[in-house]
Amino acid sequence: MRPKVTISKKFEFSASHRYWRDDWTEEKNNAAFGLCVSPYGHGHNYDLHVTVSGHIHPQTGMIINLSKLKEIVNEIVDQFDHKYLNLDTPWFKEVIPTTENIAVVLFDLIDEKLKPLSDIFLKHIRLYERSDLYADVWKD
Amino acid sequence: MRPKVTISKKFEFSASHRYWRDDWTEEKNNAAFGLCVSPYGHGHNYDLHVTVSGHIHPQTGMIINLSKLKEIVNEIVDQFDHKYLNLDTPWFKEVIPTTENIAVVLFDLIDEKLKPLSDIFLKHIRLYERSDLYADVWKD
Amino acid sequence: MRPKVTISKKFEFSASHRYWRDDWTEEKNNAAFGLCVSPYGHGHNYDLHVTVSGHIHPQTGMIINLSKLKEIVNEIVDQFDHKYLNLDTPWFKEVIPTTENIAVVLFDLIDEKLKPLSDIFLKHIRLYERSDLYADVWKD
Amino acid sequence: MRPKVTISKKFEFSASHRYWRDDWTEEKNNAAFGLCVSPYGHGHNYDLHVTVSGHIHPQTGMIINLSKLKEIVNEIVDQFDHKYLNLDTPWFKEVIPTTENIAVVLFDLIDEKLKPLSDIFLKHIRLYERSDLYADVWKD
Amino acid sequence: MRPKVTISKKFEFSASHRYWRDDWTEEKNNAAFGLCVSPYGHGHNYDLHVTVSGHIHPQTGMIINLSKLKEIVNEIVDQFDHKYLNLDTPWFKEVIPTTENIAVVLFDLIDEKLKPLSDIFLKHIRLYERSDLYADVWKD
Amino acid sequence: MRPKVTISKKFEFSASHRYWRDDWTEEKNNAAFGLCVSPYGHGHNYDLHVTVSGHIHPQTGMIINLSKLKEIVNEIVDQFDHKYLNLDTPWFKEVIPTTENIAVVLFDLIDEKLKPLSDIFLKHIRLYERSDLYADVWKD
Repeated sequence: MRPKVTISKKFEFSASHRYWRDDWTEEKNNAAFGLCVSPYGHGHNYDLHVTVSGHIHPQTGMIINLSKLKEIVNEIVDQFDHKYLNLDTPWFKEVIPTTENIAVVLFDLIDEKLKPLSDIFLKHIRLYERSDLYADVWKD
Repeated sequence: MRPKVTISKKFEFSASHRYWRDDWTEEKNNAAFGLCVSPYGHGHNYDLHVTVSGHIHPQTGMIINLSKLKEIVNEIVDQFDHKYLNLDTPWFKEVIPTTENIAVVLFDLIDEKLKPLSDIFLKHIRLYERSDLYADVWKD
Repeated sequence: MRPKVTISKKFEFSASHRYWRDDWTEEKNNAAFGLCVSPYGHGHNYDLHVTVSGHIHPQTGMIINLSKLKEIVNEIVDQFDHKYLNLDTPWFKEVIPTTENIAVVLFDLIDEKLKPLSDIFLKHIRLYERSDLYADVWKD
Repeated sequence: MRPKVTISKKFEFSASHRYWRDDWTEEKNNAAFGLCVSPYGHGHNYDLHVTVSGHIHPQTGMIINLSKLKEIVNEIVDQFDHKYLNLDTPWFKEVIPTTENIAVVLFDLIDEKLKPLSDIFLKHIRLYERSDLYADVWKD
Repeated sequence: MRPKVTISKKFEFSASHRYWRDDWTEEKNNAAFGLCVSPYGHGHNYDLHVTVSGHIHPQTGMIINLSKLKEIVNEIVDQFDHKYLNLDTPWFKEVIPTTENIAVVLFDLIDEKLKPLSDIFLKHIRLYERSDLYADVWKD
Repeated sequence: MRPKVTISKKFEFSASHRYWRDDWTEEKNNAAFGLCVSPYGHGHNYDLHVTVSGHIHPQTGMIINLSKLKEIVNEIVDQFDHKYLNLDTPWFKEVIPTTENIAVVLFDLIDEKLKPLSDIFLKHIRLYERSDLYADVWKD
């Protein structure tokens, strides 16, 4: 049995966000979200690790050409970079842009873009909000 | 099928330990444990990554509120921080405080504390003794 | 001649900012500030290294007690953490919150707070906007 | 049910490589491999994380003695360190020394060396070509 | 007296090199250069930190526009990236490409490019061959 | 005028220490040293950066041969590694093993060892107790 192999690439973006629910009182917002309620948002440098799975191509030695992977993922990451996620993007109108939710949105967006590629599939992503806080998303 | 999600938080503590078995000769201790036999112990900065699994709450966007997670894990980590693990804690009287054993003890302690929380479970921990040496503990 | 000694402590805060001058056209803003003009700001995790100089106290072995240093610097850092620097703080009404300007403001604030302490002076600060971009501020 | 445990150790080596197929035209090589076609090769600092699985020995508290693990893995790593992988080693005559292929070769070499040890098996390796590019290899 | 300020940016390149003097015997080469004599060279990921000094421009808040700095330094770094320094570049025909010598060459090249810019000067560079080995170059 | 050059190498050791003065009451010790008073000590992974200055040798391209530097510094570091600094070493009988004091002791020991080498001198050391706490020692 041959071992399994994946290749992973790190991407980066800087964004700001705010945790706030209009349908909650200020007290309830403060209790749930602490400092993250500050009105104009605050920001982070996010690191995004994207792991893809597939066969190593016998001629190129690659699961996926990194230029291809970078082209696909950067097209998505550019929509998050230097943005205020609540207002500048369409994905966080209804959901709070927590690390968990941002990661799930990114997983879905990348997964959809990679699907047309034969023999490649998105195995896993990890999103770091800081080096000490991160979400993992994957499908079994 | 929705993707799986986890959230992870890093904690830190500094502790010292000694590898030594009284029921072994000095020669056997030296052979098995090398420098780690030094009589007064030696120390490390440990990094502990705690990964929890569960559903993302639709209103808060969180698997677990980080203040809650920090409260729970810090209560445990405080019992290891600035301690000589062999003498200052109850867990390493019978077992050597290797990275593997410390990690298993931490997993069990955190797992027990998280159990009462509905919909959350401890997925995985990783304990770094140094950046180049670490143990992983998890349940399938 | 005795060697010189300093002690340094790292602090962290997350903030968002925007580069924009109302007295410039949009074209001129774009040319000078690129992505950083986005209207609602974007964010970063900042790392702040604070270096203080002084004599090592013969009894405590310390230049400054770290609890004291943390108390002083955190009082300042708390005014930057989880803030939109342009709107939430008083220092960037007239000046653009670039890494250079934020660092100078922080240096002045910390310097002023440390002055009353006898035998201690602020030697140097380094402010990382990202791990690959940072400003240093010091007095000779 | 007892939790699963693994122990991991990081190893390092510096090597150079070239991506080039003699049976392809220069244009095709350039298109597939970009900068990596440069004739004399170029180099990297590789970080190799080796994860082994097994029971924690009740007396030593260890899955494997780290001196033993280091002896075994360094014997392999020494054949990659300070080498031009295409010319100085036997493994990349037919296959391109991409991160994926180097990782698979390393996995097989370490796996073979660890097999004679009872109760230990190679769970996983991760090979970093840079901090932002890495391959994972494992068997289920 | 206003504090001094600098801004620093990290750049990266991957290159390979060999330590060898044709006018020395193999024994003498081995004694001086150890593993670094391997015939086809070996490689590293280099990190280059470039620190520039000057006045903070009152309108932009910047010592130097980072796009300008990146344009200037990348033009130089591109001549080192994915190269075998001994053969692919003109600077190491007579001198051994040690960390010290590469750093001095880089300092001179960047310094010369920055000189035409008024009010800016190159304060310092640091070149990491690995995270645990680096050279610093500066002028007083 | 030629630029100045230094070469720096990182070394590592793990040690434990305790902050305690027998001539003080327990209250005074607690007030000054906090958690660091714990009776059996606690530990850290220390990183020591050693920076040496001198001319680049025209034939070897080196300020100092790294094997020579490693031999000299490791002879000293080995006396700190896996030790309880208060009891296992001679330097902290009278002085508290704070980061500042350990750094000064290391500077003096390395400085003395490097003095016999012609054309080399110890420029600077930095000692990290953690990644967020470090002391610098140097002579002008």
